[in-house]
Amino acid sequence: MMTHTPTFDDLDAGTARSLVAAAHAAADAARAAILPHFRATGLSVDNKDAGGFDPVTEADRAAETAMRAVLTEMRPDDAILGEEAGTTPGTSGLTWVLDPIDGTRGFMSGTPTWGVLVAVSTGDRVIYGLIDQPYIGERFEGGLGRATYAGPHGGGTLRARGTASLADATLMTTFPEVGTRGDAEAFGRVARQVRLTRYGCDCYAYALLAAGHVDLVIEAGLHAYDIQAPIGVIEAAGGIVTDWEGGPVLHGGRALAAATPELHAAALAALAG
Amino acid sequence: MMTHTPTFDDLDAGTARSLVAAAHAAADAARAAILPHFRATGLSVDNKDAGGFDPVTEADRAAETAMRAVLTEMRPDDAILGEEAGTTPGTSGLTWVLDPIDGTRGFMSGTPTWGVLVAVSTGDRVIYGLIDQPYIGERFEGGLGRATYAGPHGGGTLRARGTASLADATLMTTFPEVGTRGDAEAFGRVARQVRLTRYGCDCYAYALLAAGHVDLVIEAGLHAYDIQAPIGVIEAAGGIVTDWEGGPVLHGGRALAAATPELHAAALAALAG
Repeated sequence: MMTHTPTFDDLDAGTARSLVAAAHAAADAARAAILPHFRATGLSVDNKDAGGFDPVTEADRAAETAMRAVLTEMRPDDAILGEEAGTTPGTSGLTWVLDPIDGTRGFMSGTPTWGVLVAVSTGDRVIYGLIDQPYIGERFEGGLGRATYAGPHGGGTLRARGTASLADATLMTTFPEVGTRGDAEAFGRVARQVRLTRYGCDCYAYALLAAGHVDLVIEAGLHAYDIQAPIGVIEAAGGIVTDWEGGPVLHGGRALAAATPELHAAALAALAG
Repeated sequence: MMTHTPTFDDLDAGTARSLVAAAHAAADAARAAILPHFRATGLSVDNKDAGGFDPVTEADRAAETAMRAVLTEMRPDDAILGEEAGTTPGTSGLTWVLDPIDGTRGFMSGTPTWGVLVAVSTGDRVIYGLIDQPYIGERFEGGLGRATYAGPHGGGTLRARGTASLADATLMTTFPEVGTRGDAEAFGRVARQVRLTRYGCDCYAYALLAAGHVDLVIEAGLHAYDIQAPIGVIEAAGGIVTDWEGGPVLHGGRALAAATPELHAAALAALAG
């Protein structure tokens, strides 16, 4: 049951520290749960959706279980929304939004650009996001006063770069199909105007935007747990994440992430056709 | 000047050890030369090809210079063919084939799936290949009796998996456009029959095939230095690499890499239409 809806300003420093510590502990637990399964032979794959290809690995389930155990221990009053196990209600007004493995198809293919997503939401706003890549050992986080990354060669501050025009922009998405045929056509209108389009990075694309290496990420068919952590990380780095109409996308749908307001406006216009 | 053309059997164990040691030393030197430039702000980009987007970074040049210095010292009689600096003749009959950064567009975008490619060729045959990913700290090598990988979570033996049918296969390529329009159509005939198609991995896709995580890699428009190291690594892991007609591809062109002979034959047939 939601008893109130805190904003970032409502949270005292102690609560903020507690949330950040719990997010890192959850991501650490997910790493430990996932890595024994990554690139393991005989990896078990179930089809959640009998009509399509939607693999759920043992790693996915083990990681969400591990994260829920950590969060229930460290933040017992918060709600939890996870990809695998649904919603656990809370009383604090804060919800943890978890995707244990974002990019299961990439995971199944052995690529190192899937990730663990952890976000904290007030229901209508993401106040913190964390993107973790366990195999590389990289973590990107934003919100609650933080905008930082840490990886195998050190860490630093996340800051989206200043690209203002499509002609100068690097665009990323996961699949060339993007979503529906109409979605793909809209994506194509942006892709034809940018300097470079790259595919296949799942949530890692959002981390690269926050870190100032790419300028646009455009995807469709997202769930809340796919996009909330990217929203937290990118907004803290100075970027913008909305739906394709410029409205909030934290509940999922079609996402447009941009490094600057000018670039965001140009991409919105191109998507609209 | 080529004085003779040794086969693998011609090489004594000492020569094989010398070649492997030189390959690792060259890759180590490339790592050290490249990493300070990766994800650095203000990265310098030149256009080699004024008509297109062909970035060459300082890292590319620094890495080839560093590798050439190592090889000239350790293997003074071998020839060197590098992407950046062209051909240096030798007298041993062996040629080092170097791509200091395969996947410069991925490199520019901050993705961790570009790589350093080092191969040893007799002119008509690749006898050793090495694929290195400096940021992750991963290395894949094959030939001269080796088929091994080493990465941040340990290492082991490379072995392509046993996938025999397109319906069970995971396919990778770098760009959805692949090459010409006809190339893209041929690629599409394969992609429509496989279980999963993934994009964007540059040379890392070949490493994933050798390591048993994906089954097919199909690309077009390759140079010798793009494909020789993958040939060495994949053949040592039990896979097959040819052009789209089933002939040798070590001098570049359109490459088809497959985990098994059955899968290779099925993909060749689909490419032919």
